Amino acid sequence: MRSAASFKLGLSHSAATDSTWKVEAVKQVEYHVIAARNLFAKDSTRLLDGCSAASLHRGDRRLIIIDANVDRIHGDRIRGYFEHHGIRASFVPMRADETVKEWGSAVRVVDAMNGFGIDRRREPVIAIGGGVLLDIVGFAASVYRRGTPYIRVPTTLIGLVDAGVGVKTGVNYGMGKNRLGTYAPALATFVDRAFLRTLDNRHLSNGLAEILKMALIKSLDLFELLEIFGERLIDDRFQGSSDELDTAATQVIAESIHLMLEELQPNLWESCLERCVDYGHTFSPTLEMEALPELLHGEAVAVDMALTSALGYLRGSISEAELDRVLTVMRHLGLPTWNDVLSTPGVLGAALADTVRHRDGRQRLPLPVGIGGHHFVNDVTIDGINSASALLNRKSDELRVRETSVTKVAS
Amino acid sequence: MRSAASFKLGLSHSAATDSTWKVEAVKQVEYHVIAARNLFAKDSTRLLDGCSAASLHRGDRRLIIIDANVDRIHGDRIRGYFEHHGIRASFVPMRADETVKEWGSAVRVVDAMNGFGIDRRREPVIAIGGGVLLDIVGFAASVYRRGTPYIRVPTTLIGLVDAGVGVKTGVNYGMGKNRLGTYAPALATFVDRAFLRTLDNRHLSNGLAEILKMALIKSLDLFELLEIFGERLIDDRFQGSSDELDTAATQVIAESIHLMLEELQPNLWESCLERCVDYGHTFSPTLEMEALPELLHGEAVAVDMALTSALGYLRGSISEAELDRVLTVMRHLGLPTWNDVLSTPGVLGAALADTVRHRDGRQRLPLPVGIGGHHFVNDVTIDGINSASALLNRKSDELRVRETSVTKVAS
Repeated sequence: MRSAASFKLGLSHSAATDSTWKVEAVKQVEYHVIAARNLFAKDSTRLLDGCSAASLHRGDRRLIIIDANVDRIHGDRIRGYFEHHGIRASFVPMRADETVKEWGSAVRVVDAMNGFGIDRRREPVIAIGGGVLLDIVGFAASVYRRGTPYIRVPTTLIGLVDAGVGVKTGVNYGMGKNRLGTYAPALATFVDRAFLRTLDNRHLSNGLAEILKMALIKSLDLFELLEIFGERLIDDRFQGSSDELDTAATQVIAESIHLMLEELQPNLWESCLERCVDYGHTFSPTLEMEALPELLHGEAVAVDMALTSALGYLRGSISEAELDRVLTVMRHLGLPTWNDVLSTPGVLGAALADTVRHRDGRQRLPLPVGIGGHHFVNDVTIDGINSASALLNRKSDELRVRETSVTKVAS
Repeated sequence: MRSAASFKLGLSHSAATDSTWKVEAVKQVEYHVIAARNLFAKDSTRLLDGCSAASLHRGDRRLIIIDANVDRIHGDRIRGYFEHHGIRASFVPMRADETVKEWGSAVRVVDAMNGFGIDRRREPVIAIGGGVLLDIVGFAASVYRRGTPYIRVPTTLIGLVDAGVGVKTGVNYGMGKNRLGTYAPALATFVDRAFLRTLDNRHLSNGLAEILKMALIKSLDLFELLEIFGERLIDDRFQGSSDELDTAATQVIAESIHLMLEELQPNLWESCLERCVDYGHTFSPTLEMEALPELLHGEAVAVDMALTSALGYLRGSISEAELDRVLTVMRHLGLPTWNDVLSTPGVLGAALADTVRHRDGRQRLPLPVGIGGHHFVNDVTIDGINSASALLNRKSDELRVRETSVTKVAS
């Protein structure tokens, strides 16, 4: 999958009537995603030498922005690691959730970089936390002195498979989700599922939503792994307490990352707006902001995927059996298939309109084709969405009733 | 000067022990600088069709951020132009000077884009104003929805030859000049010297500082044009009231833009930190912020160039005659060669330290070699700078005395 391609560069000048100049230039970008086990175990050197562009040496200084919760749980161990390896690490704990994903939080990171007197090119900021923290730090770093390198250590499942893998940074503004942001890859992301040991069920489900997304649009195999192992992976917190679960955890995470990178690499700056990884992200940005702080990002994505799967069924691209199978897996993964915001008049229409604006005037809406396939459509109507929403509402009720009766029978 | 080059791209995956992925991608960037005469004369179509990537059609909508002063002087004419061509233009006048070059001003632009409901890819924001306004709008546009295209119409000389030509955007933060910003080229910059007709002498001089910079490091020819025509170009406001002055105005502006683009194109993202266009920009960022609002950007650059020319003389890279010639031209162009901030203890050392941080730990200081040449040095000492500063103080005093006596003789 590696190739070379030719690009135009240079300065052309024409002085026909008045002068005109055309500047053509090319920026080569390279970044790394590096799986690691127990990154902060004292004998691990993965963080020090796992990425040559971001290597760490005894005596180096580093500014570390760490999620306050992660710091409370893992802070001593992480501090001990840097001390052990002779890195002069300066820690800035920060609260990070969707309600503070705003410019003010990015400014706190800027202030920390100013205070640290960071060396613009040789001292990458290290961000340790969930998707929200990575997005905030990435944004701050990308605009500080017009770009300061950074390294990501995701500590949540959604961070491992989504926020830590792509190149998008950002903060919310007003009601606009990620309204302010940049495309700025981290030098490297270190993916360590040891962090998932202390994650609660809800945040594991949150990450599984993005894994399910990749499965639904690109891989029946991954979907079947989730069907078989999903619930047990949650119970096990991806820690691999048996060989079977260890293999499954590795496969699910690695496959999800790989499928994601396959889609991102040829379209890193989204010059093509038909992006299948936008599946589940047509209505969810508005749902998430409207329901704030009720829905986590992955939960909003799940509701969007449930809605658009129902839409796919009504349009004939997936069968009712497939729709039911998708909704059942969602429930097993601890994800919502419904939120009452869907019935708020006007919300779905407004969400679609905002996404169309974001996608250059067309819907470019990825819809499932069976399980593991997708196509793009541009002719979704408000009536169509409302019918899908009504169907989904009914199916979600039925699922809940069935789960309740199953629970009753079991107890 | 136009060529093609090969770049690596693709996704490589290794699963030796743990998985690692390397993403390589390439971003092709293209932008245009387009000279125009009387851009907003009703019969001019240059703005409509001068750049195919940014063409304007009857019925299109555009958001226009315009400097409040420019709006007061030229607003009716510009509004008339858009009306005449059937463009639904929405104007947002904004105060823009170095004291409000801050995040709050960028937010005003973001609010305007939100209010306008801008189409992310098809409705480039048009910025009409001086360098500060262009920098603010460019920054806001570059982070809005992770990048919204924009078009620049500079209305000051410094905007025409400097801020409008490069790809840097930014706002100040705390005491840090352009501490927050991006590399984000406008689709196109339209360079119209008709705007200079209403510019005051001081702002013409401000722009001439950046032109003089290009001359000092790259072109004795351009320097001699400034020596011969500089004062008359100011008096004539670059309006070409005689054939000779018209040719000189065209040459000075076009040559300065061309020399600048030659330097920028191969190094658009400043991966190489030895940039001769940083001449005059080693001490000036700190000087400008320390003296705020006393010095305009170009004035601070002039003081820096005077200081580093004196340093060049003390180090033997330019002769005393050349130093005097440079200082004399500065004075003729209405530029300061001295500011008392230079004698504030600690300021020059702090300025150098901050620049070294910005240039990855080395000074990479461009110094003049004769007139029209340069080299980079890394061994400048505080003592050396202080000697240069003392010499410059004395020479500046002598120049002032001489000017005063010339004025007396003349009157």
